[in-house]
Amino acid sequence: MKIAVMPGDGIGREVTAQAVKVLKAVIGRTQPLELAEAAIGQAGIDAAGDPLPSATTDIARKADAILFGSAGMPGDEAIPFMMRPGASLLRLRKELGLFANFRPAFLFPELIGASTLKPEVIEGLDIMILRELTGDVYFGEPRGSGVNAAGQREAFNTMRYSEPEIERIAHVAFRTARERRRKLCSVDKANVLEVMQLWREVVARVSAEYPDVEVTHLFVDAAAMQLMRAPRQFDVIVTGNIFGDILSDAAAMLTGSIGMLPSASMAAGTFGLYEPVHGTAPDIAGKNLANPLASILSMAMMLRHSFGQTANAQRVEDAVRRVLADGLRTGDIFQPGCTRVGTEEMGDAVAATVLR
Amino acid sequence: MKIAVMPGDGIGREVTAQAVKVLKAVIGRTQPLELAEAAIGQAGIDAAGDPLPSATTDIARKADAILFGSAGMPGDEAIPFMMRPGASLLRLRKELGLFANFRPAFLFPELIGASTLKPEVIEGLDIMILRELTGDVYFGEPRGSGVNAAGQREAFNTMRYSEPEIERIAHVAFRTARERRRKLCSVDKANVLEVMQLWREVVARVSAEYPDVEVTHLFVDAAAMQLMRAPRQFDVIVTGNIFGDILSDAAAMLTGSIGMLPSASMAAGTFGLYEPVHGTAPDIAGKNLANPLASILSMAMMLRHSFGQTANAQRVEDAVRRVLADGLRTGDIFQPGCTRVGTEEMGDAVAATVLR
Ligand SMILES: CC(C)[C@H](C(=O)O)[C@@H](O)C(=O)O
Ligand SMILES: CC(C)[C@H](C(=O)O)[C@@H](O)C(=O)O
Repeated sequence: MKIAVMPGDGIGREVTAQAVKVLKAVIGRTQPLELAEAAIGQAGIDAAGDPLPSATTDIARKADAILFGSAGMPGDEAIPFMMRPGASLLRLRKELGLFANFRPAFLFPELIGASTLKPEVIEGLDIMILRELTGDVYFGEPRGSGVNAAGQREAFNTMRYSEPEIERIAHVAFRTARERRRKLCSVDKANVLEVMQLWREVVARVSAEYPDVEVTHLFVDAAAMQLMRAPRQFDVIVTGNIFGDILSDAAAMLTGSIGMLPSASMAAGTFGLYEPVHGTAPDIAGKNLANPLASILSMAMMLRHSFGQTANAQRVEDAVRRVLADGLRTGDIFQPGCTRVGTEEMGDAVAATVLR
Repeated sequence: MKIAVMPGDGIGREVTAQAVKVLKAVIGRTQPLELAEAAIGQAGIDAAGDPLPSATTDIARKADAILFGSAGMPGDEAIPFMMRPGASLLRLRKELGLFANFRPAFLFPELIGASTLKPEVIEGLDIMILRELTGDVYFGEPRGSGVNAAGQREAFNTMRYSEPEIERIAHVAFRTARERRRKLCSVDKANVLEVMQLWREVVARVSAEYPDVEVTHLFVDAAAMQLMRAPRQFDVIVTGNIFGDILSDAAAMLTGSIGMLPSASMAAGTFGLYEPVHGTAPDIAGKNLANPLASILSMAMMLRHSFGQTANAQRVEDAVRRVLADGLRTGDIFQPGCTRVGTEEMGDAVAATVLR
């Protein structure tokens, strides 16, 4: 098992350290574990003058999976776009072909009170948002800025998808739905955009190969509404890069505790990048306050999707459930009557539970 | 007062009829009222073979304001894009320069239980979403579909904004904030898109002219999260066409009763199109079941913004509040202990209350 570890910036460092701790606990001596740490984000700039140093990409290419923390620093808008710490993630996605972003939104029963939604609306919530990650307006050409025919400054980006790009993510979506409740909702804006008409057409065509999966199509505005109105109607949602960016964050917020949510960004095959949904949270970084559970759960996704270690993944997830049931809480998910712990202690507790 | 009345399709017809009824009641004989009905949507196709007949555009151009119902029919995706009933609205926006879309999201205290969010999160909610309505990926050129260099089918749209387009909506936003709680949040995706970098830059520059308005900038994914996490932090939100489409529907759903929410789409000056946020709801159309209050409140916005009739607008809004306090409810907002009424009866009740 060769894993590239990229803690990145802010709380990325301390939460990733806990994920590695739990990984070592669950793998133990049963298997050789090769961990290669690589600098990314501001850490990459500090180490090599580039948020995505070429040494980091090299380490990633030689690995079977990447355990990623978080990248980006406040105020980085002043520096050129592709040199920003946050942009390192975009470059990594594109260079490694990480086209399928899995963003689960699920609820731990103990934390149902953290949501701003009523318990009866979200009880048992379990949605998988699948976001296309290497196309759309994020990477579409042409892009840029200039002066138009009327002499006005203007800027533009291109929302673009090719048929194979849509087919590829559609197949992943249908296969994912098959392993779950066999319901897929494809989200687009086919009533306005040609690119989304192609999206809808291709998803509809691919659906014929999966007659056992029930497929529906929603416009993105309606999807945003339905996510809030009746989120449990959804099983798997598949959508493009920019709509997925918005909807997956909305879905995460349904749970009320984004400190708990993992994600996976997969290439074709089993190579993937695993990262918590939360950001660098510079305000609490380095203070042993951050919640490491999203990072630990991302590592569990890695065990399952990149290494086929379903049993070990399950052990980690069960351990997380156990420490929550035992009442351990970092500050972000603290409730009266629970035991407040720091980042390290939470990591220790999960590692100890995994070993039991 | 010259008003073009475009009931459109589905429940658009019956709710608009109630708004006209209340309008006549509130204006009475104090002022000459010239109402010109014009066909749009499927009704336009039936009447003249075009969802936006040229006769309709002519009537609109001669009017001071448009009272719009709803347009679009299920299954219209089979017909060419610009011939679809739903697309008539897009064409109208563009042809009449309706660039500023006001989408208020506010709560009637009686209906707080309709929301899926906890009462303490949304109590007193009062957000104005201002969506740019004639630019962005909705109208950006080039757009279309074809075959790329690799021989693959592909399709594309262009997210494009010019500096004057952004300036124009920014000024409307700051002026709107001035009349409210003096807080403006501009939503973009400047960390990824050049067009949104221009957006942020221009909004920031315009803000210098409004030192009394507190301005913040949020990325669209964070905005979607914050709308759900702590919606009352917002006063006015300004954003582009596609992000506004998504966020305004999400904000509407915070209230739980989109049958209550009006909207206004303004050109430069006082010309505007006023329409309820809800759609054609073909399943309940023609059954006297639809809630006419959003349409009635849209008419009140018309009185205020196109005709400067603040007192009359207020009378209509107060009348709506009164009938709700009296316990009258259409099916969509029904609660035990209330009196269930139909579309007509609700319209009658508001009209009678306005006359009191
Ligand atoms: C940091 C940013 C570029 C990124 C994105 O927009 O993809 C983030 O929001 C995410 O969802 O991973
Ligand atoms: C019907 C559709 C084209 C329209 C839009 O996307 O603008 C609608 O969703 C709206 O928000 O008015």
